[in-house]
Amino acid sequence: MRMYDIIAKKRDGGTLTRAELEFAIGGYVAGAVPDYQMSALLMAVYLRGMTDDETATLTDVMARSGDMVDLSAIGGVKADKHSTGGVGDKTTLVITPIVAACGVKVAKMSGRGLGHTGGTIDKMEAVPGTRTEMTQEQFFEQVNDIGLAVIGQSGHIAVADKKLYALRDVTATVGCLPLIASSIMSKKLAAGSDAILLDVTMGSGAFMHTLPEAIELARLMVAIGTAHGRRVAALITDMDKPLGHNIGNALEVAESMAVLKNEGPADLTEVCLQLAANMLVLAGRGDMAACRAMAQRTLKDGSAFEKCCRMFAAQGGDVRTLQNTALLPQAPHRFELRVGQSGYITQNDVERIGSASVLLGAGRLTKEDAIDPAAGIVLHKKLGDRVEAGESLATFHAADPALFAAAEETYRQGLVIGPEKPNEPPLVYARVSADGVETF
Amino acid sequence: MRMYDIIAKKRDGGTLTRAELEFAIGGYVAGAVPDYQMSALLMAVYLRGMTDDETATLTDVMARSGDMVDLSAIGGVKADKHSTGGVGDKTTLVITPIVAACGVKVAKMSGRGLGHTGGTIDKMEAVPGTRTEMTQEQFFEQVNDIGLAVIGQSGHIAVADKKLYALRDVTATVGCLPLIASSIMSKKLAAGSDAILLDVTMGSGAFMHTLPEAIELARLMVAIGTAHGRRVAALITDMDKPLGHNIGNALEVAESMAVLKNEGPADLTEVCLQLAANMLVLAGRGDMAACRAMAQRTLKDGSAFEKCCRMFAAQGGDVRTLQNTALLPQAPHRFELRVGQSGYITQNDVERIGSASVLLGAGRLTKEDAIDPAAGIVLHKKLGDRVEAGESLATFHAADPALFAAAEETYRQGLVIGPEKPNEPPLVYARVSADGVETF
Repeated sequence: MRMYDIIAKKRDGGTLTRAELEFAIGGYVAGAVPDYQMSALLMAVYLRGMTDDETATLTDVMARSGDMVDLSAIGGVKADKHSTGGVGDKTTLVITPIVAACGVKVAKMSGRGLGHTGGTIDKMEAVPGTRTEMTQEQFFEQVNDIGLAVIGQSGHIAVADKKLYALRDVTATVGCLPLIASSIMSKKLAAGSDAILLDVTMGSGAFMHTLPEAIELARLMVAIGTAHGRRVAALITDMDKPLGHNIGNALEVAESMAVLKNEGPADLTEVCLQLAANMLVLAGRGDMAACRAMAQRTLKDGSAFEKCCRMFAAQGGDVRTLQNTALLPQAPHRFELRVGQSGYITQNDVERIGSASVLLGAGRLTKEDAIDPAAGIVLHKKLGDRVEAGESLATFHAADPALFAAAEETYRQGLVIGPEKPNEPPLVYARVSADGVETF
Repeated sequence: MRMYDIIAKKRDGGTLTRAELEFAIGGYVAGAVPDYQMSALLMAVYLRGMTDDETATLTDVMARSGDMVDLSAIGGVKADKHSTGGVGDKTTLVITPIVAACGVKVAKMSGRGLGHTGGTIDKMEAVPGTRTEMTQEQFFEQVNDIGLAVIGQSGHIAVADKKLYALRDVTATVGCLPLIASSIMSKKLAAGSDAILLDVTMGSGAFMHTLPEAIELARLMVAIGTAHGRRVAALITDMDKPLGHNIGNALEVAESMAVLKNEGPADLTEVCLQLAANMLVLAGRGDMAACRAMAQRTLKDGSAFEKCCRMFAAQGGDVRTLQNTALLPQAPHRFELRVGQSGYITQNDVERIGSASVLLGAGRLTKEDAIDPAAGIVLHKKLGDRVEAGESLATFHAADPALFAAAEETYRQGLVIGPEKPNEPPLVYARVSADGVETF
C-alpha cells in the first residue's frame, strides 16, 4: 500500500477503506507518512468529504491510535459529555454533579482552553489546591467512591488526533465536518463512557455558525457513536450570547456554584437542566420529563452542590471557596465598560468577548501561556438588553490595569447599540439522537 | 500576508492575486513556506482549479523564480518546441535541424528522461563525445554561428518548478491542468524564445488520455504564452502507438538520422514535417503550405541532415556515427518477442512498451539511475498491424540477457491479439493556436 494511492483515491472522490485509513493514520503517527502527504490528504478530505461509514472508521482508527480506557472496573452506566466550545461555557461544572447526584457515574476527562474559549480543567484549577491529574487507579477509585471525577485528558488518548489537529491548524483544514467529528468522537470513544451527550454550540462564539451546519455535525457525531455501540445524543445550544454573566475561570466557578445552590442565572440554569436531563435519559434513568424533574430536585435539595464539593475535596480543592465564592481568587483591578448612547445591544460578538477576556489574562493564545484564574469579564448587559448612556455593560477584572485598553478595544469592535430590540435567540435549537432531529 | 489565508482562499474557490502567488511560491523556494502548507495549496488548486489569468500569473511567478534567459544577443526570431512526452518520441532531433536549415534560429534547452518516456539530452549523449552542457556565451555563439544548439536545461531555470514538481510527484497533484501548464510554460518563458511550438501528446503512452483534455491543456498553454507576448501554437499528436519503430537512445538517434536523410518511416516523417512547418509558421516564414514545402525540401536536399551534423560536431559528437549509424553503440544481446497466435494487434499499451525499454536499461526510474545508450526495443509490428503465429513483433536490445524476462512480461501485459483490425488513429488530432482550435 502507498500513501500516494490513498491521496489519489480521496482526491478522485473515492471512499477509503479501514486498511487505507489505518495505513495513513498509523503511518502518520509513526512518522512514516510525512506531513506534506498528510496535508494533501486532509485537503482532499476537506473538499471531497467522507461518507458516514468512512468517518466512523476514521474515528475508530484515531481512537485506537492511543490508549482505549476500559471503564469496566466502574460499576453501572458511565456518562460523559462534550461541548464543541464556547465563551463562558461552564456547564460541565454544573451538570456532572447533577448527573452524579442522580446516581449515574461520571468519569470525565476534560481539556484546557485555547484561543477565545475556556476549558473545564482551567476552571477547576481556579479552586485553590485542586489536582486534575491522577493515576487511572485513583481515577476509577474516586468514581466508584463518590460517582464523579473530572480530570485532565491524558496525553495518551487519541494520539493521532493531537498530531492531526496541529497539522489541520496550519493548513486550513480545520473546518471540515468529518474531520471535526472524528477528532471529537475519537477522544470520546477512547475515554470509554457508555452514554455520551454532545453540546454542539452555535452562533458567533462557536465553531458552527448556522443551524444546518450544527445539526449536520451533531448528526454525524451521533451516527459515529451509535456505530460503535455507544448511546449518543446532541443538543444544539446557542452561543450568540454567553450563558450566565461570568467569563473567566474563578468567575465561572462562582457562577456555577450559584446554579448548584439553585441561585444561578435563569438561562444558564435552564440549559444545564436540559443537558443534565438528556444525559440521564441516555443513561437509562427514565423519560425526559422524569429526568428533568430528577435533575431539578438535585438543585433544590442541595445534593448536586454536595456532590460537587465532594469531588473537589477528593481532588484536593479548598471547598470553603465553593461554599463562599468570595474566597476564590479576586482580581485587584476592575474597569467598567460604558457606552455613550442609549438603546438596545443589537450585536455583541461572542468571539470578541472571549478574546477580550484572553487579553485580560483569563485564557491563553499559545499552549505555553499562563492563565490568571481571577481575570475575566462580568457581563451586566447582553445581546438584546436595553442600555442607558453611561451605564456599565460589563466589568473587566485583571491583575494589571494596563491590560484594560486592548481588551476594551476588542470588546467594542463587536458591539453595536441600536434603536430596536433584536429577536431573542432560543437557548436550545434542536436535539439530535439516533432517532432523528427534533427542533425547538 | 499569511500562507494559511492563501490556502483557505483557494480551498474556498477564490482566485489568487499576483501578490499571493509571489508570497506562496517565493516563500516556498526560500524555505519559509513548509512542504505541508504547499501540498495543501496544491491539492486545493487540483480540486478547485485556477482561472486562465491566475494560471498565467502563476507561470510568470514560477518563471521569475530562476534565471530569465535573454536571447537578444542572437539575431532574428528564435523558435523553441516542447513535447509533453512520449515513448520513442524523437521528433526534437529531427525538427530542430529542419527549422534551423530553413534559417530560423533554435536555442533549445531540453530535459532528461524519467520513467517510461525518454529525454532528448539522453538521446544526444548516445552519440559518442557529445557535450550537452556549455556556458551561456558558448550557447549563444553556437546558435549565432550555425543556427542551432540543443543543451541540457540549466538548474537555474524556473527553480520553483523543480521544487514544486518533486512535491506534486509525491502528493498526487501532478495531473492538474493549471499545474501542468504552468510547469511547462514557466520553463519555456524563462528559456527566452519568441516562437514556441507545443507538441501535446495524447493516448496510452502520454499524460493526456483524451482529446478534450489534450485540447484544454494546449489551449491553456497557448493562452499563457500569448499573454506573455510569445507566439505559441500546439499540435495534439497521437501517442497510442510510438512514432517510427525504435525506442532507446542510440536506436532513436539512428531512426532520426534516417528521417533527416529522407529515408525514415512514413509516420515519423509526416509528424516531423507538420511540427516543423508549424514552427516555421510561428517564426513568420510564411503560410502552412509554404512552410511545409520548405521543411520537406531540407530533407530532400540534405540540408537538415547537414545542419544536424554541424550541431553535433560543434558539441563534440562523433559525426561518423550519424553518417553511418551502425557505428552507434550496439547492444551485445537481442531477443525476439513472438506470439503464438495470428491476428491483429488490438492493444499494445505504449506506457508498458516504455516501461519494458526502461527495464532493458534504456531509461531511468530514479534520477540517479545510469542509462545504457544501446539498450531498447525495435518494433516490427505496431498497434493495428497483422501478425502471424511465431513471427517476431519486436527485438529487445540489452547489455545482459537476464534483463529480457521482466521486460518481456511487462510488454506482454499491454499486448492483445484479436481477430479484427482496430481503427487507425490519426497522427495529428488537432492544432490549437491563439486563433482557436482546428481539428483534423
